[in-house]
Amino acid sequence: MNFASDNTAPVHPSVLQALAAANEGYAMSYGADPLTLSVQDQIREIFEAPDAAVYLVATGTTANALSLACLGAPWQTVFCHRHAHIQEDECGAPEFFSGGAKLTLVDGAHGKIDPDALKLAILGEQTRGVHGVQRGPLSITQTSEKGTVYSLGELKALTTMAATYGMPVHMDGSRFANALVSLGCTPAEMTWKAGIDAVSFGGTKNGLMGVEAVILFDAEKAWEFELRRKRAGHLFSKHRYLAAQMDAYLKGGLWLDMAKHANATCFDLADKLSKKSNVRVHTTPQANILFADWSRATHQKLHEAGAAYYLWSGDLDAGDPDEMLAARIVCDWSASADDSAAFLALFD
Amino acid sequence: MNFASDNTAPVHPSVLQALAAANEGYAMSYGADPLTLSVQDQIREIFEAPDAAVYLVATGTTANALSLACLGAPWQTVFCHRHAHIQEDECGAPEFFSGGAKLTLVDGAHGKIDPDALKLAILGEQTRGVHGVQRGPLSITQTSEKGTVYSLGELKALTTMAATYGMPVHMDGSRFANALVSLGCTPAEMTWKAGIDAVSFGGTKNGLMGVEAVILFDAEKAWEFELRRKRAGHLFSKHRYLAAQMDAYLKGGLWLDMAKHANATCFDLADKLSKKSNVRVHTTPQANILFADWSRATHQKLHEAGAAYYLWSGDLDAGDPDEMLAARIVCDWSASADDSAAFLALFD
Amino acid sequence: MNFASDNTAPVHPSVLQALAAANEGYAMSYGADPLTLSVQDQIREIFEAPDAAVYLVATGTTANALSLACLGAPWQTVFCHRHAHIQEDECGAPEFFSGGAKLTLVDGAHGKIDPDALKLAILGEQTRGVHGVQRGPLSITQTSEKGTVYSLGELKALTTMAATYGMPVHMDGSRFANALVSLGCTPAEMTWKAGIDAVSFGGTKNGLMGVEAVILFDAEKAWEFELRRKRAGHLFSKHRYLAAQMDAYLKGGLWLDMAKHANATCFDLADKLSKKSNVRVHTTPQANILFADWSRATHQKLHEAGAAYYLWSGDLDAGDPDEMLAARIVCDWSASADDSAAFLALFD
Amino acid sequence: MNFASDNTAPVHPSVLQALAAANEGYAMSYGADPLTLSVQDQIREIFEAPDAAVYLVATGTTANALSLACLGAPWQTVFCHRHAHIQEDECGAPEFFSGGAKLTLVDGAHGKIDPDALKLAILGEQTRGVHGVQRGPLSITQTSEKGTVYSLGELKALTTMAATYGMPVHMDGSRFANALVSLGCTPAEMTWKAGIDAVSFGGTKNGLMGVEAVILFDAEKAWEFELRRKRAGHLFSKHRYLAAQMDAYLKGGLWLDMAKHANATCFDLADKLSKKSNVRVHTTPQANILFADWSRATHQKLHEAGAAYYLWSGDLDAGDPDEMLAARIVCDWSASADDSAAFLALFD
Repeated sequence: MNFASDNTAPVHPSVLQALAAANEGYAMSYGADPLTLSVQDQIREIFEAPDAAVYLVATGTTANALSLACLGAPWQTVFCHRHAHIQEDECGAPEFFSGGAKLTLVDGAHGKIDPDALKLAILGEQTRGVHGVQRGPLSITQTSEKGTVYSLGELKALTTMAATYGMPVHMDGSRFANALVSLGCTPAEMTWKAGIDAVSFGGTKNGLMGVEAVILFDAEKAWEFELRRKRAGHLFSKHRYLAAQMDAYLKGGLWLDMAKHANATCFDLADKLSKKSNVRVHTTPQANILFADWSRATHQKLHEAGAAYYLWSGDLDAGDPDEMLAARIVCDWSASADDSAAFLALFD
Repeated sequence: MNFASDNTAPVHPSVLQALAAANEGYAMSYGADPLTLSVQDQIREIFEAPDAAVYLVATGTTANALSLACLGAPWQTVFCHRHAHIQEDECGAPEFFSGGAKLTLVDGAHGKIDPDALKLAILGEQTRGVHGVQRGPLSITQTSEKGTVYSLGELKALTTMAATYGMPVHMDGSRFANALVSLGCTPAEMTWKAGIDAVSFGGTKNGLMGVEAVILFDAEKAWEFELRRKRAGHLFSKHRYLAAQMDAYLKGGLWLDMAKHANATCFDLADKLSKKSNVRVHTTPQANILFADWSRATHQKLHEAGAAYYLWSGDLDAGDPDEMLAARIVCDWSASADDSAAFLALFD
Repeated sequence: MNFASDNTAPVHPSVLQALAAANEGYAMSYGADPLTLSVQDQIREIFEAPDAAVYLVATGTTANALSLACLGAPWQTVFCHRHAHIQEDECGAPEFFSGGAKLTLVDGAHGKIDPDALKLAILGEQTRGVHGVQRGPLSITQTSEKGTVYSLGELKALTTMAATYGMPVHMDGSRFANALVSLGCTPAEMTWKAGIDAVSFGGTKNGLMGVEAVILFDAEKAWEFELRRKRAGHLFSKHRYLAAQMDAYLKGGLWLDMAKHANATCFDLADKLSKKSNVRVHTTPQANILFADWSRATHQKLHEAGAAYYLWSGDLDAGDPDEMLAARIVCDWSASADDSAAFLALFD
Repeated sequence: MNFASDNTAPVHPSVLQALAAANEGYAMSYGADPLTLSVQDQIREIFEAPDAAVYLVATGTTANALSLACLGAPWQTVFCHRHAHIQEDECGAPEFFSGGAKLTLVDGAHGKIDPDALKLAILGEQTRGVHGVQRGPLSITQTSEKGTVYSLGELKALTTMAATYGMPVHMDGSRFANALVSLGCTPAEMTWKAGIDAVSFGGTKNGLMGVEAVILFDAEKAWEFELRRKRAGHLFSKHRYLAAQMDAYLKGGLWLDMAKHANATCFDLADKLSKKSNVRVHTTPQANILFADWSRATHQKLHEAGAAYYLWSGDLDAGDPDEMLAARIVCDWSASADDSAAFLALFD
């Protein structure tokens, strides 16, 4: 019964097999091995982007920070949701990698940037000439931190606005696959066809040990990216083991299958939880994350029974037993029906 | 016949087994898992340093740059060998992580810092008050880039000098194990007992996929290290897979066995090469790297036969066939007697 | 009729005289001249802070950014008002000097940080351990960007809260003198006695060419400050000309006289404007800045008549002539009664 | 008898007059005043560079560091003389402003970069692909720190080599005027016609309080320069006082007259010193700096008599009275014949 995060899940068995298979004899280091080249080609094909620059890094923070550093400049501000991972969970990585850029925080319900709020934010910056920071990249999180998914229309509305003001657009896709299968569109449709310039294409949260791809649809900054990656310590010498993971991920659409399973588990859980009299599901989930309220007493009971998830508001121990407190439930690729059933049973 | 680098080698089978074993069910993320805690304890025990702060990162560049950033300040200069990895092979990582520190390059034969040259370099800096950068950490590479190993006496001479000028000392130990088994001393003797304040304890070059430990013998900067690591994108969410590798590395002294094998292969190769009439071995190797000269014609013959190693000087294709050109030969944990024999046979 | 900014004003004649007087023969460079030492002592005496470190720099942005870099760390966030100069008017200087710190923006009416909003902001940061940035310095602007002045009680409320969370406090005093004479207290009372750790003591806006002092009440970071200043290009070689300006500023309380005059001019203007039927003064000014509304048509008339001030909202040219638009009026040390009278006459 | 540095000299009286003249009434701030615009035009005209971007800053370190940050990138290395001001006297300013670039130190006699040494240095960098830093700008100091002057041919040899490797060229001209009058060429000939891309055009050492111009002959990076200047705290609000100094400097060729006087004083001093039996002048000076040896006893005598200059080698107090020790003598615009005579008399 672990719904704490998709980071706490194991990796898919085929990833281990791929690592073992890649472990034969010698291979060129630093990404010059055939497996890396193959994976880069596969990603270009999957994204229908033959000219894109594709790189593998080991963490999502790195994928985001390197992308934003390439898209922007130190004297710019990155526009993102007030609760974006790059703002709240990366200890200032965008600031560090960029050499001191700002983040401008934009509001929006359910973890999604509100277009009107974005417009106000954009208009609010770069109004003082050289005295203020300049408008830099827009960063959109798909799937958002609240588990919501931008529709293609919503994406286009945001990227069109960014384009109007000359701002490039980055997509934090640490849960890219979950959004993609939710929308039922192609990777190209959810990225460059929707106006995205660079994407952090996540693997770690969806069944890998630690691999994310960065895709720069315009390869102009490719060499800059490589130099930034190296000097940030993110160029792996035994690069084949990053490539092997990503290769397993892509093979036969495993990445999509894992995301579908995670989403389906979440949808099922939401459905069943919503039928419990003592549970209030916030909104119908769109990917593999759901938020719901139940009483402190129920939280305590679940906690004692070993159910793992984030208490999103309030204090587990102190307060009225009947007070409703929010929970964040994340379903990962390995989530089992048994776990869901056991979890649900605790509400009875 | 691959002697190009210890980075081109595969990982030890027990590492793969450890990854598989660690892949059971859920585990706390970001280093809060039991395996990580166990590995940290094991390292403290191996280094006889119960109060040390121990961290795992994925690349040697990161281990070095984070250590130096914690030991120094942006307005300082790091003293290192002119051909140190931090100077030549990290694309400015120490400068990036530190926020713009300098490196002062010190000469010395065979890749080792000469104490007199170091003293001159130290005296040459910080002579202009606020106008010049201030003396910062000394970084020593053990095993050096030239495959040589500092004796304990040599280490102490350098660290004593550093202490005289108030400078902390970092050890780049990407080939720590190779030096250790060469000296036949304990990890404590080669580090804190010899005046080292922080060490990059390498695993990647010696049989792991990509794990290095940083050991801060004085834990005062532990929290700063953790924040720097996080904001540099080097805190792994699925941290257990770093820990599993390091656990396998330490178990039963595997790390020492692998280093002994690599060194022994190198010593044997040097011995046999030195008996070839057409080969001139530079100096008796002390670890797993040897340098030797042979003619361009021989290089070409070896190259065509598929022998992989670095041509350390000159041009393979253009020039006098009899001209002697240097080769760098690196023996890794997986080096086979058959490979050595096949390689040697090419000289006949 | 120039009320655009105190930056557009000339310098006081005695400043020019002091420069001429300082221009005799040779003097030690880089701040080792007797005049600099004297000025540092004078400031220590005026602030009743015999152990403080005192430095002169040429711009307010520099004073702020160097102070904050010394008080904080790259992985921290600086708390400041949403419309603070360090946020809106320094093109990311705090981020640049600090090496990538964040700013957390706090609301509050009339340009002053609201204590409740500050508490919420503080509680909102550093809730995610190593994942988020850490709490750093609080920066308070006295006089605020809206021309308001924190009372001593208000200052203490904010600094006490900061102290509770271990946060040092910086005061951006680019209009320090205007606030001081408004409160009628001593410099010590408005700074270290109120819990301020470092102050940017402004001179440029109040009659100098370009000199601000930074006072670090705890001199522990004095040497760090000097190194940061030097490497940022802010250590003047012919330092005596900074010192001469500051010397003239302090002599006989000129700085206080100039601020009193500027404030009095502003109070008088506010009083008379408030009696105009077509003017709405926002709040009674506390220093040398006032905000007021009048119609677009009046703005146009004033503009044509050569009155200089900032249109704080709306568009001068396009829109309903009767629409009320805000103006910012800044009175400087040289403001003349004739100018005020001429300006007021335009409203009739 | 002050020959310590041109930084210890007073400013020319006409500079004070210009400041007074500029102090009439209100003026636009931040460089939008007419005097600034006029000065920029004058500099463009003097340099025959109608499209150049021209900026005023207050210190030479700033002029250099901002220029180099615009010409290069964080992952590059700046080539400069081993004893260049940017290496030895700016406390890491180029590293700070650039975001962590390196400096590659090039040897050369008498403070001038040796072309062969430069070629070797260039060939030594960027040999390892992404692993090493990339070749960045070349910085040439004219007049050099040793008081020597590059001929136009020497300049072209260096800039041509830089161009071959795609490297832009910066000139640190803190003593630009002294070199120019020494060569007897035009500003254009010594800069863009000789292959210079950006120049720090010094004023402070040659009679101003603290003003240097940066000239970017290619204005492509003009806006980047302005943003970097602002966020580094180097955009002066009361900008007219920088402009007034530069205006006086240029008016009637005052800058050239002052440099000629300083050089002539130096030449005369060298001539007369070389005739003293107990003095050994190093090389015939080319600008306003000379180096010469005399005995420790003579140094002590001069020191007691109040002669101020830098002891360039050895210890004044301890050692053989007859040992020859080097002195650095700098002649400034205000150097008097009486001072020279008094100084020379001390050698008899």
